[in-house]
Amino acid sequence: MSEVRRDIVTDTWVIVRTGPERPAPEAAGAPEPCPFCAGREGQTPPEIAAVRASGSAANQPGWLVRVVPDRNPVLRIEGELARSGVGIHDVVTGIGANEVIIESPEHVTNFADLADEQVERVLGVYQDRLVDLYRDKRFRYVLVFKDHGTLAGGSSIGHVHSQVIALPATPRRVKDQLAGARAYYQYKERCIFCDILQDELAGGSRVLETTGHFAVFAPYASRLPYELRVCPRRHSYSYAETSREELADLARVLRRTIGRLYRALADPPYNMVLHTAPNLLPQRGYWQTVREDYHWFIELIPRVKRTDGFEWGSGFFINPVAPERAVAVLKEVS
Amino acid sequence: MSEVRRDIVTDTWVIVRTGPERPAPEAAGAPEPCPFCAGREGQTPPEIAAVRASGSAANQPGWLVRVVPDRNPVLRIEGELARSGVGIHDVVTGIGANEVIIESPEHVTNFADLADEQVERVLGVYQDRLVDLYRDKRFRYVLVFKDHGTLAGGSSIGHVHSQVIALPATPRRVKDQLAGARAYYQYKERCIFCDILQDELAGGSRVLETTGHFAVFAPYASRLPYELRVCPRRHSYSYAETSREELADLARVLRRTIGRLYRALADPPYNMVLHTAPNLLPQRGYWQTVREDYHWFIELIPRVKRTDGFEWGSGFFINPVAPERAVAVLKEVS
Repeated sequence: MSEVRRDIVTDTWVIVRTGPERPAPEAAGAPEPCPFCAGREGQTPPEIAAVRASGSAANQPGWLVRVVPDRNPVLRIEGELARSGVGIHDVVTGIGANEVIIESPEHVTNFADLADEQVERVLGVYQDRLVDLYRDKRFRYVLVFKDHGTLAGGSSIGHVHSQVIALPATPRRVKDQLAGARAYYQYKERCIFCDILQDELAGGSRVLETTGHFAVFAPYASRLPYELRVCPRRHSYSYAETSREELADLARVLRRTIGRLYRALADPPYNMVLHTAPNLLPQRGYWQTVREDYHWFIELIPRVKRTDGFEWGSGFFINPVAPERAVAVLKEVS
Repeated sequence: MSEVRRDIVTDTWVIVRTGPERPAPEAAGAPEPCPFCAGREGQTPPEIAAVRASGSAANQPGWLVRVVPDRNPVLRIEGELARSGVGIHDVVTGIGANEVIIESPEHVTNFADLADEQVERVLGVYQDRLVDLYRDKRFRYVLVFKDHGTLAGGSSIGHVHSQVIALPATPRRVKDQLAGARAYYQYKERCIFCDILQDELAGGSRVLETTGHFAVFAPYASRLPYELRVCPRRHSYSYAETSREELADLARVLRRTIGRLYRALADPPYNMVLHTAPNLLPQRGYWQTVREDYHWFIELIPRVKRTDGFEWGSGFFINPVAPERAVAVLKEVS
């Protein structure tokens, strides 16, 4: 049980668990044997979707990528989306989706150890889930992300997996990006992300790699050390409109980039976050310019530095590793 | 050496160290003997200010609270504040102040173990530093904060201390608070924080304690478990205008509250952050309504939960402990 509460001063949303407390994941220890391996389909809830060898049955071996509901979801899929007031405050019912994408039938723990074709399949499943969940107009935003390592908030299950959360409200940081992009577009009639990319490619000191369709660079104002963005070179507001050819290219560059982080920083805890446009179905009017002014990207955030009170309190960050230096270090790793 | 860079999409500022990398504080280990204890004044840079027994000389024993520059400051105090463009990006020179407030001459590690009168002296020094640094119109915001424990980003020096950072740009979260408060005031002609406080006091389920001048409560949309706010009951936009009588009351309630967290959560890592108005000297026009619409408070943030990619990527939070439950747990501790 949960509800989604809004901080009315800063417009920040928080999913608050109102049911009984569950034990912290780090205290639980890794379940043995691994419930995500092929052959143990019965240890997860029934699958929502899967990429399967032809002829194999649901919830049986034969899958290559498998999507299951989270065993302990923070949001529930059934019910009406209701917004209401509680005293001065705002609350939305805890409606949403909480899915786990199991990214390999074998017990692989490092995403970079997957084959390129497998990463491509996984990226295709991200796209499928995004498209499917955006058909539900109760959901304002769908966030696809990966937590690798318990220090990055990951579960004790080491088997490669990502998560999908469909949300009944637009996250604060997404709104900040959308508003910033819209303001720039109104002023310049250009996409701010396209302009940033052009600037990065012209300078070069923060660019780790470019491929036919993508660029990998460390943002100029990286909040954390070794933060990277994988960004499509053509203007594209939504990950949903990425072509199969682009996904194949993305698979190679993403695998290579995570491999570099793995080797340069000795298997760091990290987060991977897909930033894409909000669901336009319920809010077509509000974010009507999003197709022109927004630009999707993947953010990779190694968690090698702890955040302190300064950062939590203020939203101002101290990054001890300049992004130019981070890229120089990562370039040394092949 | 550092520079202050702005993420132009989200208006988030980051202090980027551009000089040689320094070792991570957690790797360094606690220095022995403690450089903050009385008698070892030579092991810190010369003091900026101190509360001293009459007759005792600067940088000698006899002090009760001592303020020294950070040995490894992220910002430097000398120089002109210059804003410039780097390609598409914005940068400000790394001008600011970085001070350490040593909160006891004895080697005390738990803030709640200080005497009430000592906490009152410390709170007075916070006020003095704020007033002094706000005389410098290069500084847009002064943040006073405490990191307790390395998991909260604290240094390996366990001796009670806080930090002061004077910044050449207004932090994002502060701007969000100011903008939210202004919008509410324009609509209602009332302070949003006063209204929230009234709502909390009427409801009661999130109120831990009230005193003559202060209320302690868990915010309705707490981002993290056991997050608390200590808030003046009268409308007051700046910590600088707090009276001596109010500081004495604050000292008692703050010490008691930190003691409760200490016992209920077994000496958790935590951050304490003072939220107060920005410096009105350089930006009188922009935040002209701040005296009416803003309200200072102290935020206490135990760091008992790790943030994950969902939270880092989206600014949407999942709090597994409802604030009502957190308050119930803390009330059981005397």
